[in-house]
Amino acid sequence: MTTAKRDTYTPETLLNVAVRVFNERGYDGTSMEHLSRAAGISKSSIYHHVAGKEELLRRAVSRATDGLFRILDEPGALRGRAVERVEYVTRRTVEVLMAELPYVTLLLRVRGNTKTERWALERRREFDQRVAALLKAAVADGDLRADVDIRLATRLLFGMVNSLVEWYRPQPEAGAGGVEGVPAVDDLPGTVVRLAFEGMRAAGR
Amino acid sequence: MTTAKRDTYTPETLLNVAVRVFNERGYDGTSMEHLSRAAGISKSSIYHHVAGKEELLRRAVSRATDGLFRILDEPGALRGRAVERVEYVTRRTVEVLMAELPYVTLLLRVRGNTKTERWALERRREFDQRVAALLKAAVADGDLRADVDIRLATRLLFGMVNSLVEWYRPQPEAGAGGVEGVPAVDDLPGTVVRLAFEGMRAAGR
Repeated sequence: MTTAKRDTYTPETLLNVAVRVFNERGYDGTSMEHLSRAAGISKSSIYHHVAGKEELLRRAVSRATDGLFRILDEPGALRGRAVERVEYVTRRTVEVLMAELPYVTLLLRVRGNTKTERWALERRREFDQRVAALLKAAVADGDLRADVDIRLATRLLFGMVNSLVEWYRPQPEAGAGGVEGVPAVDDLPGTVVRLAFEGMRAAGR
Repeated sequence: MTTAKRDTYTPETLLNVAVRVFNERGYDGTSMEHLSRAAGISKSSIYHHVAGKEELLRRAVSRATDGLFRILDEPGALRGRAVERVEYVTRRTVEVLMAELPYVTLLLRVRGNTKTERWALERRREFDQRVAALLKAAVADGDLRADVDIRLATRLLFGMVNSLVEWYRPQPEAGAGGVEGVPAVDDLPGTVVRLAFEGMRAAGR
């Protein structure tokens, strides 16, 4: 296909295409030429919508971080015991990852080579620190175990949660990498919370 | 520095350089020219040691997967209740990740574009399946909770364990990405096992 499409993009739909290409080729490895080819419109048509690829990155990352930070203002994150708030935030974080998968995937793959990438890393760090503060409060309440370093627990919790971007796919696709087949994900957010907070051991074992 | 070093490499030390470059640039993005520059020796000197970059990848991935599969033949992985065996394998997997960090990092970043990469993915899948089988046996024994899909539990367990390659660094370096500072890692393998199997909740909460 060499015929250019008529430009029927909105900033929103163009962003979808850009995020897909960024995730496939890496942000560094993506040129305006790649974006133009993927969108099927000319580079000048893209420049009609955005100043360049860094603006697309900024918009995409904003969508991911806005979704994550909004969680912290929800009633479930503000009221109740710290342990309930942190479980709520964990559950909702998984839900946002599932709903905004390509955007959060991009956020988690950002390296920090440009100003926008460094800003993205900073926002991600801020979110992690807000969750770490909740974990700390829950330890102080005696609800979470005190024998694990908070920063380490935060890393491992996000390690588990963020691994979703590697294997979770909205529509089951056979053999989509990793473990054979696609796991049953009836209640993925609830399962992550159960495993992270209660562990894999059967009760009383 | 444009002066080429005298070639004092062994296949082993050349592999260290190659793995570092693969992890920095991605395997796809690494050319023999990049390897030659990083090693400070000519391309023909590299060809004296190996047939090409795919051989270097195969050797590097073998080192990672050999380390992982050896765990499964250790007495702790073969004797005792399934739950103890799977906890042993989890602990040892973390230890191998820590000891062979650049090699396992490369293994976990492989995409599957070449025959060697697909073989690496297959080996990784095999290892995951061996651990999944142990988890299944521990559920059958009643030692692990039965309300979580085994494949999902396997993914989340490895999500937590494999996240180490993103943030664990042998020598603490200030501000090495992710959460501020470096978490205390006195007993990282033990901590991962405690969190994964017992969860973050304090006992009885």
